[in-house]
Amino acid sequence: MIRPARPGDVPVIHRLIRELAEYEQEPKAVVSTEADLHAALFSAHPAVFAHIAEHTENEGGGTTVAGFALWFRNFSTWTGTHGIYLEDLYVRPELRGRGYGKALLAELAAICVDRGYSRLEWSVLDWNKPAIDFYRSLGAVPMDGWTVFRLTADDLTALGTG
Amino acid sequence: MIRPARPGDVPVIHRLIRELAEYEQEPKAVVSTEADLHAALFSAHPAVFAHIAEHTENEGGGTTVAGFALWFRNFSTWTGTHGIYLEDLYVRPELRGRGYGKALLAELAAICVDRGYSRLEWSVLDWNKPAIDFYRSLGAVPMDGWTVFRLTADDLTALGTG
Repeated sequence: MIRPARPGDVPVIHRLIRELAEYEQEPKAVVSTEADLHAALFSAHPAVFAHIAEHTENEGGGTTVAGFALWFRNFSTWTGTHGIYLEDLYVRPELRGRGYGKALLAELAAICVDRGYSRLEWSVLDWNKPAIDFYRSLGAVPMDGWTVFRLTADDLTALGTG
Repeated sequence: MIRPARPGDVPVIHRLIRELAEYEQEPKAVVSTEADLHAALFSAHPAVFAHIAEHTENEGGGTTVAGFALWFRNFSTWTGTHGIYLEDLYVRPELRGRGYGKALLAELAAICVDRGYSRLEWSVLDWNKPAIDFYRSLGAVPMDGWTVFRLTADDLTALGTG
């Protein structure tokens, strides 16, 4: 049901990234192209990875992509190990409630266990209560007291070239 | 003044990681070893990197490590590019106010500009107002409305092997 993404999955992953951005109320934020995704996921030494949840349409029938997880390795200087940061997790609305989201998270947790990684982390919009309740049910805890800061665009360029 | 870390820097980086954990009021959280850091930073295809700020003691004298930045590559599905996530930034207390922290951030910003990376990100403790004021002065913005969730230890194992 869960498998690593293949190059042929890039168009559907790209479509689902746009669907997720619409759900997050940022439909115009996606400026990435399929070529960008292909280059990042399938380079000689990729630093970003994706897994696919595959839905079997019917007995003996074909399969369709139900959702995806896109992730990279983070690192903890406290534990001295890598972990996984889950950048995007998305299941198509019409295929929700079938366990695909949990199966994708479980696959990443299994990778952590296999490799001795210490942490599986991701970010949630504070208004997304159904997601937060689900994550808490798995034992995930919010990193209260910490805030992520981001430097982009002209301010990033100014600091980097100043 | 800023240079990539070398294998010989690992002992001092490890010591400064422990100092930073003490400052963050988590002195017992550091269970990593020098060997862990060496393995992660200097493998054949590392997924974590470090830079060193070097302080020149006096005219014609030796140098000492003033501070370090340890980072890895993140990825944005919206921009389709990698970015840098700064896991640790630390300058020794006795060498603060000399610009080493800003120089380390500027080096990472320069890497972003050179490589076409879209974002430089890091996390700050909400009570660390001097740091927050400094980051805001550079144009960094807090990702308000998002919370990081973390799954670790027994809950991570349960999900990964369940």
